[in-house]
Amino acid sequence: MFRVLYCGICHSDLHSIKNEWGFSTYPLVPGHEIVGVVTEVGSKVKKFKVGDRVGVGGLVGSCLSCDNCINNLESYCPTYVLTYGATYYDGTTTYGGYSDIMVASEHFVVRMPDNLPLDAAAPLLCAGITVYSPLKYFGLDKPGVHVGVVGLGGLGHVAVKFAKAFGAKVTVISTSPNKKDEAIQRLGADSFLVSHDPDQMQAAMGTMDGIIDTVSAFHPLQPLLGLVKTNGKLVMVGAPDKPLELPVFSIIMGRKMVAGSGGGGMKEMQEMIDFAAEHNITADIEVIPMDYVNTAMERLVKADIRYRFVIDIANTLKAAQN
Amino acid sequence: MFRVLYCGICHSDLHSIKNEWGFSTYPLVPGHEIVGVVTEVGSKVKKFKVGDRVGVGGLVGSCLSCDNCINNLESYCPTYVLTYGATYYDGTTTYGGYSDIMVASEHFVVRMPDNLPLDAAAPLLCAGITVYSPLKYFGLDKPGVHVGVVGLGGLGHVAVKFAKAFGAKVTVISTSPNKKDEAIQRLGADSFLVSHDPDQMQAAMGTMDGIIDTVSAFHPLQPLLGLVKTNGKLVMVGAPDKPLELPVFSIIMGRKMVAGSGGGGMKEMQEMIDFAAEHNITADIEVIPMDYVNTAMERLVKADIRYRFVIDIANTLKAAQN
Repeated sequence: MFRVLYCGICHSDLHSIKNEWGFSTYPLVPGHEIVGVVTEVGSKVKKFKVGDRVGVGGLVGSCLSCDNCINNLESYCPTYVLTYGATYYDGTTTYGGYSDIMVASEHFVVRMPDNLPLDAAAPLLCAGITVYSPLKYFGLDKPGVHVGVVGLGGLGHVAVKFAKAFGAKVTVISTSPNKKDEAIQRLGADSFLVSHDPDQMQAAMGTMDGIIDTVSAFHPLQPLLGLVKTNGKLVMVGAPDKPLELPVFSIIMGRKMVAGSGGGGMKEMQEMIDFAAEHNITADIEVIPMDYVNTAMERLVKADIRYRFVIDIANTLKAAQN
Repeated sequence: MFRVLYCGICHSDLHSIKNEWGFSTYPLVPGHEIVGVVTEVGSKVKKFKVGDRVGVGGLVGSCLSCDNCINNLESYCPTYVLTYGATYYDGTTTYGGYSDIMVASEHFVVRMPDNLPLDAAAPLLCAGITVYSPLKYFGLDKPGVHVGVVGLGGLGHVAVKFAKAFGAKVTVISTSPNKKDEAIQRLGADSFLVSHDPDQMQAAMGTMDGIIDTVSAFHPLQPLLGLVKTNGKLVMVGAPDKPLELPVFSIIMGRKMVAGSGGGGMKEMQEMIDFAAEHNITADIEVIPMDYVNTAMERLVKADIRYRFVIDIANTLKAAQN
């Protein structure tokens, strides 16, 4: 059990609240970028003790016995349990981190290194692992590789930071020309492409080893496939609710691939957090009180946030009086 | 220079004749599955001598200096020269293998091993390399991996043979239930799925390491993505002229990929031919005389061929009298 200190607001919280994916159940308590301090441990707990700084991301359970679980890929276990809105193995509903306390199995809890500020590190538990995992898996974590990042939001801005920390050359691809200074000067990207500028896109054709595409709105893949080299990889981490158009000639000519990636396993989650601590990577956040959450959701719809809201749970959420 | 003995009829010959891809130029001589015997060599030719059995596939030129060429990926060179209907470096138009003689640079010529019958080996020069290359590159060439092959035509039937020779478990996925016996008993596939049978497809969910999809008609990818395991690979080698629908959730859940592959380089082409010779792999063919070619094209439209037409050039094509 741990006392929740901060919880990030992920775009999927908004999808879930509004049942935009069609599988929400109510009452629903969102939040899967959760950090806090351990207040109590069960008798079999080995990894943590009272007072430890901990974090929980998108998963609180998986079977731990299937091929994926055995290979530290709990996020691909067919019977994983999401942190909120899912049915836990005991039949109860899971509730997320917009909450004062939380109980979780130690396997799904990570240790937060001492030098990471908990508020700004909270979003790493979803946004961070979502981009870190594919950068690693698809070999985009090597010095000198050229990585594109499509969309400069909660996921995108963290993708830039991780890719730069890996030593990659990073190009941000965005529909918004006014994000250029931000991308380069503040986040450290090497270059910036406006996706609807044909000259800029043409000049960058065939220059990238891979792209992390964080955009969950419908968008064309053809221009992005043009940006990658032979054997290049376009990795989707945003999930549009409608199918995208796949131009098959564009992947055949150049042996390219469009791949997906969803989160990461618990071993990789701890590795990601430790890497972030080592390289001083955190999310750029706006800390808000609990009673601002509805306003924050409205601003999130308009993408009016750079780049992640984090709720100051401990100081602003009062536990219900029983 | 070599005397052409046989030339396979690839479906792309049909597309080209009818200008279905929009870039055909006429007069056009199709054919890029060409085998023959060397009749003359230039003074700088080192690999071949008069009398050698040789083959030419889809390419007759590439820059030999770009990153792709240096990495033996001539088929991804931005300035490659197709075997027919393209402009060669000297400004002349290239003409394909429906022809009595052919001149080619030795770099784009492979040696045909003695034990390979030239007629049945001709289709390996396009259909063979098109499926061999992705089986190798995407790691589907290992004993015990489970490979799906979608579509049992010119490409598909050779894909089954190569995958079996690699030691893979092979499942053919087809819309035609009546191809089951053929697939299993004649070609040696381990199992067969009718793609529109939901029970069969459901039972096979998540069982395959990868799929080679040879279908060039519009078709849904979602059921195929369901068949592959976590980290599974759906590789497109058929090129529909319209974009396919890519269900992004289906690739995110399971870190799957949809990749393309186009041909292979010359080093791999020779390796493929040598592997075929070693494992007695040839295409199943129907040898036809030159004057049957129009009828063959009509039958090809109806997929009325198991599995490849090969033109007996040497015995049935008379050179024009000058």
